[in-house]
Amino acid sequence: MIEILRSGLYKWAGDAYTFNEDGQPYIEVVNSPNNPDGTHREAVVNGGKGKVIYDFAYYWPQYTAITSAADHDIMLFTLSKCTGHAGSRIGWALVKDKDIAEKMTEYIAISSIGVSKESQVRAAKVIGVLCDGCENVGVVESENFFEFSRNLMAKRWQKLREALKHSECFTLFKYPREHCLFTGEFTKTLPAYAWLKCKEGIEDCNEFLSGLKIVGRGGKAFGVDPIFARISMLSKEDEFNQFIERLLVATRGLAMGINL
Amino acid sequence: MIEILRSGLYKWAGDAYTFNEDGQPYIEVVNSPNNPDGTHREAVVNGGKGKVIYDFAYYWPQYTAITSAADHDIMLFTLSKCTGHAGSRIGWALVKDKDIAEKMTEYIAISSIGVSKESQVRAAKVIGVLCDGCENVGVVESENFFEFSRNLMAKRWQKLREALKHSECFTLFKYPREHCLFTGEFTKTLPAYAWLKCKEGIEDCNEFLSGLKIVGRGGKAFGVDPIFARISMLSKEDEFNQFIERLLVATRGLAMGINL
Repeated sequence: MIEILRSGLYKWAGDAYTFNEDGQPYIEVVNSPNNPDGTHREAVVNGGKGKVIYDFAYYWPQYTAITSAADHDIMLFTLSKCTGHAGSRIGWALVKDKDIAEKMTEYIAISSIGVSKESQVRAAKVIGVLCDGCENVGVVESENFFEFSRNLMAKRWQKLREALKHSECFTLFKYPREHCLFTGEFTKTLPAYAWLKCKEGIEDCNEFLSGLKIVGRGGKAFGVDPIFARISMLSKEDEFNQFIERLLVATRGLAMGINL
Repeated sequence: MIEILRSGLYKWAGDAYTFNEDGQPYIEVVNSPNNPDGTHREAVVNGGKGKVIYDFAYYWPQYTAITSAADHDIMLFTLSKCTGHAGSRIGWALVKDKDIAEKMTEYIAISSIGVSKESQVRAAKVIGVLCDGCENVGVVESENFFEFSRNLMAKRWQKLREALKHSECFTLFKYPREHCLFTGEFTKTLPAYAWLKCKEGIEDCNEFLSGLKIVGRGGKAFGVDPIFARISMLSKEDEFNQFIERLLVATRGLAMGINL
């Protein structure tokens, strides 16, 4: 919006790591866990005049340990990656400063006169079901939504790591186990995306994936080297299995010396 | 959005009737039938460099005669006033220039990443039902949605005109009967809003309505004299009846010399 309307108020200043206009007011957006690599992030710009917006789209216990209570000044959440209802276009913000909260509400009113009622009704129902399921965590034996989702993610990550164990093409990030305040256990990080890094000899990871009929998103789109690419771990079950199959074909193919 | 982001591309230039920056490019928005007064409108700025956007939110046969096929370059429609599904936030545009259409699509993608799927599904269903009902207009006896709505609007307008027949406070616009291509008949204009004008002695129509416990919107909000006010004709049945009751109280009260 800033770019498309050539805003007189704001300007895109690029990567936060390289931002060094001392004393200038700024807004830093921290996506934690980070998309695409799933790591926990903190603000990186040093300066007193900035506002930091925490985007917690992926800060849910099926993906990552909840290591501390979210308590920042401006925090964004969405149902999108929490339950998969991205198409409902429902998010929410927790904001400490009343003036900022009012400005945000005004922006929503002006830009869209509010969010679809159908979506609001559905989101309220979905959140109700989630909360009901979580009330008895650790007390009742039945699996709540986050446990169910965590188990699903764990199975998928296991399949992926196994498929790439002997791969001569790709490596995967290793994530630390961390103590999760939600589950009360040390849990694995199971990101929503696989952040693949190609081994030597493959320069464009996404192009290489295309050759395997796997649709990813190249590192360049995330401001890094094309030896990286992002693949969704949230596809439908049969799509995910096909993705693993195609990765295995590559591994086997290379082992047999077939030129892919 | 233009104002809130201080756009470097566009600037609000005020009332189209007073716009006279010859040769400047401009965008004129024509709301026809007009909100609030229900009259048919055409572009008023003379100049070759302008784009005209027709907002046809109220161009539906329950409100107005469909006097000609809508055939402008850029036309906006919405389910909001067509069926009352304003909360679904669904509209559509018919645009002749492919480049403009693509820019509009891009804007929607950037500003909202698309519209709620729940709303899209509901809108598709609603539009399907409307179209099915209209297929046999004039052939089958059963009332389609637009006939049903037109009859409802006609009853409400009749009640309102009767309530104000002897009013010493308000007058109403008179609208011409026009030939409607949809119904094939000469039909009355039955706007979504009553555009009330106060008679001499009442300076602020909306304030006067407030005294009668009627919530309207004053003329100032529409750039005209406060002797005008807008009242929705689309409220729920019991609300509408209460509105008529309260208008009658005013008429009777004044007839009996009660100071309101």
